[in-house]
Amino acid sequence: MTVLGLGPMGTTLAKAFLTAGHRTTVWNRTPGRAGNLAVRGAAEVALAAEAVDASPLVVVCLATYEAVHEVLVPIADQLVGRTVVNLTSGSPVHARETAAWVERQGADYLDGVIMTVPSGIGNQDFLLLYAGSQAAFDGSRGILVALGHPVYLGADAALASVYDTALLSLMWGTLTGWLHGVALIGADGPGGNVTATTYTTVADRWMKTVRAFMRSYAPQVDSGQYPGGEFTLELHQKTMDILAHASELRGVASGLPELVKELTGRAIAAGHGNDSYARLVEFIRRDGG
Amino acid sequence: MTVLGLGPMGTTLAKAFLTAGHRTTVWNRTPGRAGNLAVRGAAEVALAAEAVDASPLVVVCLATYEAVHEVLVPIADQLVGRTVVNLTSGSPVHARETAAWVERQGADYLDGVIMTVPSGIGNQDFLLLYAGSQAAFDGSRGILVALGHPVYLGADAALASVYDTALLSLMWGTLTGWLHGVALIGADGPGGNVTATTYTTVADRWMKTVRAFMRSYAPQVDSGQYPGGEFTLELHQKTMDILAHASELRGVASGLPELVKELTGRAIAAGHGNDSYARLVEFIRRDGG
Repeated sequence: MTVLGLGPMGTTLAKAFLTAGHRTTVWNRTPGRAGNLAVRGAAEVALAAEAVDASPLVVVCLATYEAVHEVLVPIADQLVGRTVVNLTSGSPVHARETAAWVERQGADYLDGVIMTVPSGIGNQDFLLLYAGSQAAFDGSRGILVALGHPVYLGADAALASVYDTALLSLMWGTLTGWLHGVALIGADGPGGNVTATTYTTVADRWMKTVRAFMRSYAPQVDSGQYPGGEFTLELHQKTMDILAHASELRGVASGLPELVKELTGRAIAAGHGNDSYARLVEFIRRDGG
Repeated sequence: MTVLGLGPMGTTLAKAFLTAGHRTTVWNRTPGRAGNLAVRGAAEVALAAEAVDASPLVVVCLATYEAVHEVLVPIADQLVGRTVVNLTSGSPVHARETAAWVERQGADYLDGVIMTVPSGIGNQDFLLLYAGSQAAFDGSRGILVALGHPVYLGADAALASVYDTALLSLMWGTLTGWLHGVALIGADGPGGNVTATTYTTVADRWMKTVRAFMRSYAPQVDSGQYPGGEFTLELHQKTMDILAHASELRGVASGLPELVKELTGRAIAAGHGNDSYARLVEFIRRDGG
């Protein structure tokens, strides 16, 4: 195992590999960053070429994709036959360009996104997303699992970055809905008897239902058929009005209720009142509705 | 067990009680609605007073709180010593008024909210929220469990309705974030290889992380201390810019990114850039920021 880049995240990755018992070679542009890692058994080398030569699997974690190219281009010959796993943050376009370049050098490429902060590394509750060569993923999965739960997304290297953005939007949507609920509970809280902690215990249990909705709506989106069953957009709209009214009464900002009401209103106006919430996917695309 | 009101939901409640083996008496203003229930062993009676007389536990599920009062006021004398569980949809104010009135008649009162549709009744994956008399809840929990997972929220009867609104805002926030992600994935989908179903498998796994954030932020809200640790509002803002940009590029409506960016921007402008996302609760209250 080789790790190129010893920023806070790269250092944590190398530590996780060492903890899992993997022989680990590390390199950083500015040398002398491997202090703690060397104590744990990492081999620090002075040249990136040397680091790459040391292992068939090369994990790259640098500040930018520009830095990745600056480091890899001069040692392109050393990449032949190896697997490059790039965990540097970047865009879908960066990922595709880098995948194409690495593959031209005769190496396998995986683009990865770490869905946690350094302190979450090594914890199987957290995801690391990988996209690119299936063979590279299958061959290195047993090692990558040291970093967290590995998920393979597909052959297009851009997918890790695309999923990252999509999953963050899910996170912000959820957390904003949670904050809205906390504020509603707090503002109306009878004598302040409800704490956010108490509320969140129930909210966490409720997420089981919400996740069941997500899972049942996904195939609706794929089929383009959105039967509303017992929970139609008309019914959503009725309860959204209650939420908007309650938010108003309790002095809670109306951004979230207005957003969902506006979407729902447009779908109903277009004749989809008997459909499920999943129909809104057509109205969240800017050309929809 | 007595059930007053045989609309689609009341009928399903009675059926769940019968399935669980409870002797069940039913009443509906318009008679003759108990067809299937009678076959299953329900006793249908013609008068609400008779129905109430039949059981110590009276479940009410009518169209409105006005209907609840129309039915109960003439038979107030029959309520003494019983427990009234009101599962009619209404506001926090309705719940408090009804609780006070029922208690004045010498009965215990629980206000409940059913967090599912009729077809979810009897499934322990779904929640029923109860607020009001703790003694009434403790005494009837063993029967109410026939309807779904019962959660007791506290003595203020308004709490069930308040939680309902808060949990729905969490649901809509989550589902809107999910839809946004589905649209992002779909619009950028490399050759349409990513389906909503595939994405949602990963999204569902990711919710474990999101729920961990919720649970760690709740005590921050309660203490008014919001240490950002490794995931500060500054870092959120940086990745929100990426989401907004990606949404723009892929033709996905920017409502959700704009909402979260605006909130985050206000908190950072107020000097909270090193705090966690939970700090935003102060900016979601209309007097905040």
